[in-house]
Amino acid sequence: MTDDTEANESTTPTAAQTACFEAGIKFGSLYHQFAGTPISPSSAPSLARAMEESIENQPHCSAVTVDVRTDELERELADSTADYTELTGRFLEVEIVVDYEDREVVTRMAMEDGYPLMELVSVDDREPDA
Amino acid sequence: MTDDTEANESTTPTAAQTACFEAGIKFGSLYHQFAGTPISPSSAPSLARAMEESIENQPHCSAVTVDVRTDELERELADSTADYTELTGRFLEVEIVVDYEDREVVTRMAMEDGYPLMELVSVDDREPDA
Amino acid sequence: MTDDTEANESTTPTAAQTACFEAGIKFGSLYHQFAGTPISPSSAPSLARAMEESIENQPHCSAVTVDVRTDELERELADSTADYTELTGRFLEVEIVVDYEDREVVTRMAMEDGYPLMELVSVDDREPDA
Amino acid sequence: MTDDTEANESTTPTAAQTACFEAGIKFGSLYHQFAGTPISPSSAPSLARAMEESIENQPHCSAVTVDVRTDELERELADSTADYTELTGRFLEVEIVVDYEDREVVTRMAMEDGYPLMELVSVDDREPDA
Repeated sequence: MTDDTEANESTTPTAAQTACFEAGIKFGSLYHQFAGTPISPSSAPSLARAMEESIENQPHCSAVTVDVRTDELERELADSTADYTELTGRFLEVEIVVDYEDREVVTRMAMEDGYPLMELVSVDDREPDA
Repeated sequence: MTDDTEANESTTPTAAQTACFEAGIKFGSLYHQFAGTPISPSSAPSLARAMEESIENQPHCSAVTVDVRTDELERELADSTADYTELTGRFLEVEIVVDYEDREVVTRMAMEDGYPLMELVSVDDREPDA
Repeated sequence: MTDDTEANESTTPTAAQTACFEAGIKFGSLYHQFAGTPISPSSAPSLARAMEESIENQPHCSAVTVDVRTDELERELADSTADYTELTGRFLEVEIVVDYEDREVVTRMAMEDGYPLMELVSVDDREPDA
Repeated sequence: MTDDTEANESTTPTAAQTACFEAGIKFGSLYHQFAGTPISPSSAPSLARAMEESIENQPHCSAVTVDVRTDELERELADSTADYTELTGRFLEVEIVVDYEDREVVTRMAMEDGYPLMELVSVDDREPDA
């Protein structure tokens, strides 16, 4: 019992914890791959689709749903001399579902207090039926 | 000696030179925004579409055409244990047309000697009709 | 049966699971923000430093260590006519430590069977001292 | 005279036009590689350095100077509950110098009317001395 990270019997990650780690990877990937992309109301649907399909390629990723908040996008462009802007979190609502060794993790990004917040919604840590 | 592309005492950029600068911006943007995106043969079409439509938002950009070289993509995946990879230049053929003050610039990216090369294809430096 | 990592009726995420999710976000962010960056042996140290310091800004991120595998980088460039390449996973060894509500999660990216693998190394799920 | 791109004797790009195209590539690359990176006043210097050194790797790029507008960064963070934000154009002043076949092109990005504007500053199109 000399391991200084030890307190429980083990610090070995559980399947549910690994599922949560995998879900986080997908969220960080999606955000930092696509933040900064030029976006307008007319190009938003193709970008949303590409974000979904590209991140769904990643391991254990069962579903990605990207909604562009076109109301917010149009409001920003109405105040602007430009007809496009850069993709950032306040234009996005995203849900990502990861399935790792039968543990399903649902995660979401949405605005909270003016900031885009990525959060774990649920972690289904049931043992699969024998 | 009135041709504005001619060597002269001034270093003020000409319209055609500015058109070339604008075309370069689009190419650098497209490449570095999307390089690294997870891609598979099935997700390639939506990514190509998003690349086209997002970069076409940029000023003076009249057309972007992105073809994913799915043959090259499939060859790489055939040698791999994964079913997706990261987008990089050898999977892409891109043409971008910029129109700036009636100067049309055509640019292209394709493989040359094993490297993706971005190049100016033509610069139409005619004076617009009076 | 009070261990909050245990399978139970609830799907409410535990603190340790959230810590793992946060760690995944940092890894996906780091990778997809910086993949594709032009890199050479001489520019590698400044890029590694920027990767560390930028990701350490993210919430709950206590330490990021990025080592560029310059041996691998030099090997690739020796076979090339170019003197730089694009950053990708095979040039990187990364360790990220997250601390969320006193749960410490250690994660790592390194090559395994020819692929860069992001993995949870340990999850310290001890209850903090009362 | 039936070729609709023909008007001058040729649409073949000049060395100065190619230099401008190359300069644009560097600017688009720099912006879209690094936009979205987490940044704070303390991490700004390492990011600026990495931006300079990584883009200087690109062909024909003789100098890149990146200044982070820390006044603007601090003003944004003062209004925020967070202690970092995402890199975007309004926090940057950038100068890039390209040298292509002895033509030197100086380009700059700075705020104009509330937008980050990339512009050609000068194009030295002198024939080099024999």
